[in-house]
Amino acid sequence: MIQSRTHTCNELKMSNVGECVIIVGWYENIRRVSKNLGFLQLRDYYGVTQVVIETEEMMDIVDSVNNESTLSIEGVVRERTSKNATLATGDIEIVPEKITILGKCQYNALPFEINQSKEADENTRLKYRYLDLRNPNVKEKIILRSKIVADLRNRMNELGFLEINTPILTCSSPEGARDYLVPSRNFPGKFYALPQAPQQFKQILMASGFDRYFQIAPCFRDEDARADRSPGEFYQLDMEMAFASQEDVFSIVEEVLPPVFEKYGVYKTASKAPFKHIQYTTAMEVYGSDKPDLRIDLLIQDATEVMADCGFGPFENQVVKAIVVDKFNATRKVIDKICADVEVQTGNKAFWFKLDENNELVGGISKFLVDKKEQVIEALGLKPGDFVGLTAGKKLVAQKTAGVLRKLLGYASETHMKQDCYEFCWIVDFPMYEIGEESGKLEFCHNPFSMPQGGMDALMNEDPEKILAYQYDLVCNGVELSSGAVRNHDPEIMIKAFELVGLGEEDVKAKFPAMYNAFCYGAPPHAGIAPGVDRMIMLITGEESIREIIPFPMNKNAMDVMMGAPSEVEQKQLEDVHIKIDITEEDK
Amino acid sequence: MIQSRTHTCNELKMSNVGECVIIVGWYENIRRVSKNLGFLQLRDYYGVTQVVIETEEMMDIVDSVNNESTLSIEGVVRERTSKNATLATGDIEIVPEKITILGKCQYNALPFEINQSKEADENTRLKYRYLDLRNPNVKEKIILRSKIVADLRNRMNELGFLEINTPILTCSSPEGARDYLVPSRNFPGKFYALPQAPQQFKQILMASGFDRYFQIAPCFRDEDARADRSPGEFYQLDMEMAFASQEDVFSIVEEVLPPVFEKYGVYKTASKAPFKHIQYTTAMEVYGSDKPDLRIDLLIQDATEVMADCGFGPFENQVVKAIVVDKFNATRKVIDKICADVEVQTGNKAFWFKLDENNELVGGISKFLVDKKEQVIEALGLKPGDFVGLTAGKKLVAQKTAGVLRKLLGYASETHMKQDCYEFCWIVDFPMYEIGEESGKLEFCHNPFSMPQGGMDALMNEDPEKILAYQYDLVCNGVELSSGAVRNHDPEIMIKAFELVGLGEEDVKAKFPAMYNAFCYGAPPHAGIAPGVDRMIMLITGEESIREIIPFPMNKNAMDVMMGAPSEVEQKQLEDVHIKIDITEEDK
Repeated sequence: MIQSRTHTCNELKMSNVGECVIIVGWYENIRRVSKNLGFLQLRDYYGVTQVVIETEEMMDIVDSVNNESTLSIEGVVRERTSKNATLATGDIEIVPEKITILGKCQYNALPFEINQSKEADENTRLKYRYLDLRNPNVKEKIILRSKIVADLRNRMNELGFLEINTPILTCSSPEGARDYLVPSRNFPGKFYALPQAPQQFKQILMASGFDRYFQIAPCFRDEDARADRSPGEFYQLDMEMAFASQEDVFSIVEEVLPPVFEKYGVYKTASKAPFKHIQYTTAMEVYGSDKPDLRIDLLIQDATEVMADCGFGPFENQVVKAIVVDKFNATRKVIDKICADVEVQTGNKAFWFKLDENNELVGGISKFLVDKKEQVIEALGLKPGDFVGLTAGKKLVAQKTAGVLRKLLGYASETHMKQDCYEFCWIVDFPMYEIGEESGKLEFCHNPFSMPQGGMDALMNEDPEKILAYQYDLVCNGVELSSGAVRNHDPEIMIKAFELVGLGEEDVKAKFPAMYNAFCYGAPPHAGIAPGVDRMIMLITGEESIREIIPFPMNKNAMDVMMGAPSEVEQKQLEDVHIKIDITEEDK
Repeated sequence: MIQSRTHTCNELKMSNVGECVIIVGWYENIRRVSKNLGFLQLRDYYGVTQVVIETEEMMDIVDSVNNESTLSIEGVVRERTSKNATLATGDIEIVPEKITILGKCQYNALPFEINQSKEADENTRLKYRYLDLRNPNVKEKIILRSKIVADLRNRMNELGFLEINTPILTCSSPEGARDYLVPSRNFPGKFYALPQAPQQFKQILMASGFDRYFQIAPCFRDEDARADRSPGEFYQLDMEMAFASQEDVFSIVEEVLPPVFEKYGVYKTASKAPFKHIQYTTAMEVYGSDKPDLRIDLLIQDATEVMADCGFGPFENQVVKAIVVDKFNATRKVIDKICADVEVQTGNKAFWFKLDENNELVGGISKFLVDKKEQVIEALGLKPGDFVGLTAGKKLVAQKTAGVLRKLLGYASETHMKQDCYEFCWIVDFPMYEIGEESGKLEFCHNPFSMPQGGMDALMNEDPEKILAYQYDLVCNGVELSSGAVRNHDPEIMIKAFELVGLGEEDVKAKFPAMYNAFCYGAPPHAGIAPGVDRMIMLITGEESIREIIPFPMNKNAMDVMMGAPSEVEQKQLEDVHIKIDITEEDK
């Protein structure tokens, strides 16, 4: 039985001087001054404490083990001669009377230096994740994640939401992404699937009479990795409210998220309630994106009319969008880089000109505009010194390209992007239907199970392309955190909504049979959202790689190199669940 | 857009009389007094409110929908003439001015009456779980579950434990039960597996420098259902502590569990810290079980010596155990039932006799004992009126049979079982090794990865059968809530422990490779436990069926009849993950 520590490695202060204490932790390193004198750093979860080795006997013990072994050190606290103000325990050191080896590190050399683990090759970091996590800078992000999730939970509980764990072994759904399958033992040839999201279950909970549901919900999609999505599993702050409107959902999110972002974030301010509401069509017009970064105050203007007939080929018979930036002092090199980046990101070109301090149009495409200088100045409201970025194409292309240009101009400008804040907004009023580009027919725009604004009346009497849905996106600093919706809880309206795109009752049932059945027994109107936990934590911590904020991430190829998953299994295991491996030639 | 409710259905009181309000909920039923007069009950998550229908117009609206439709009712609060003291809103009723139908129930008849759903056939309940959950008595258990889990979490957070979600897609392990497999898309022929418990991950977290970990952890075992285990998935309050001893784990559990049991339990008192510690061998001797129900104060005595040569066949050359019960006034019929139940539960017979008020041995096997009456009285310490239950067999059989007899006698006695309390205890000092009944060789008794008491020294120098492990069980009211252990964190001691049973380093590595690798880089001593959340909630709520405390349970055959899981999937889905169905003749 080990003797318990009396203090952590982050606790001892001047007031403890003279006390006999026991600390435990990892032998991080030793700075040797002479054969019998050295300063050993002992590290635990909480911090680091210096231990002075002053005798041959103690030095022998230390020398008998490698760095990163675990030790128990019993000794007396002494004031340091040279203090270290950057360390919580920097005023003191321990003079050991007894050193006990608790766990030996068997290797003299580690795959990487603990404190430099972030610079190691990623697969090595993942394979030795237990060493990587010993690095306080790596561990810190995982601690932050836990605290953020705990705070989100507490806030939801305080607001009367009930956390309900919905099943993880459920059934495959034709909707959305690729499912992870789990072969069944009791039912040969049948499969469970891991849930892509608890969407059906949470809506069934509403039909079951629960009022405010939430869950830090594990979700599973067998899709390739992306920068902001780990392959395999990810978490959502899933929530749903009965008898609730869009505004009810908004006010909960506005109450829960900003305090957590402000408390833990790299930026210290976040939007206050109510967040700005931006109609989808306005967002596309003014920001060229349905996930605008509102830290940037630049707006997109339409320049189609004034640019018509200017003689610049790429503008001919195209929609033209313009972004005016005042006080934009970027060099020609920076401007060229921005235009090149726009082309890389969108496949479309960006153009520019300037109205210089002498009120002359200069640079970029200015020579095409000399003849209509006054109209251009008036149409775009230009002042001397303004920079104008331009994009062209069919409406949506011009908009989206301008959206990317807007962001790059914002990042590059000194005065048009707020620093150190989280700017939230709601994108609302998404269209319910659109004419499919390929089919040329009416199609659902986003989620067919959102409630159309105006309900049955709108479906019966309005131009389908003009019908809006109670569907909304939550956006923060240009990142889409979630889509949400007031759900269509009425089977009759559901069927009608499907009929408009040439489908019917059978199609509704086929998509979400259990939910549809439940709604036929009297459902409440309900609405919800499910902000992505991983994305929120990336924003809060300022990490760009999702693997930094997951305790045991898979690599980009969906492999856990530490555990060796996925792995081969025994033939008996496959027989138990009535499957066999089927590797085709092209798999090899 | 629906008009929001002003109040829930559990809120309105005399002080609201005269107010115009909006309530929303399910139309539970109507008591009709006449064509134009009826009392409608509107039910939401929070409660029930009475609505008086007094006009033909309002009655027509109500008559246009079936029960269990959702309604919004706007009206004025009025004092009731006949109040209902059992209802929070029983003093008032609503006189509606406007009734809006929010969601129609399309069926005139339901599969069961909402308030009688618990009496319906189980498969019907599960299929229509959304209707079953509308029954307040059913819903209540799910609400309780959520609250209990939230409280457990808060308490763990307060004690400095960090909740860390470990991967759900991980690799198959040769240990323990049958894994659920998930075929991999990127690696043809390889499989993920769902974790049976996060055992390896939590121990790796300790080696990673985390200090106090916990998780409400989903666990998955592809095993057949049992009364106290749902097929498929279940949850554990998983925890692990670095640099910790058995006592450190005990004190956390003793601080976290009893307050939650007392707050939410059907019984209102729970053991206080420290819980009773009972050595495994003592538990078997005295309680005939390693999960004793300490509400019962009966103890088992050894009666082998005094019963030897009494001439009663079943006792010949056997170990005999006795349980003395004073003030036991059960009828002969009850005693016979107890003996019959013992035989059903154990396959072994129980026997009995009494020392009557006249100090005569009577009943049961008394005639075999007449000759040695005084020795029997002295050996068992009998007083007039005492009842004696007996079991016989090889030592373990006699003990276990006596354990069952003890419980049944306790339940049947009026004075030997405490009511209305949760009695916790720790079973400690499990043996590390035993001689296998079949093999006749030394084998691990329980978990080979627990730390042997005395460490390397004991393994080198002691009789292996006498070595104890730092392994412990948490027991409450006769239910085992969890096993836990101080883990063996030292690869050298691990290998030595395996060598004693004829295994070696390769076997250690094969069982938990990632954990073993991590320990080679310097691990802290650590210990933990993982009380089963579902079992705790069954004890707290007093529910005997695990399906009552799970929001969407599978049936006993591991089928979700509501969702239709498991289900058939498309050929393309199987091809994507490189498997095909392999149904043999015997599967059919």
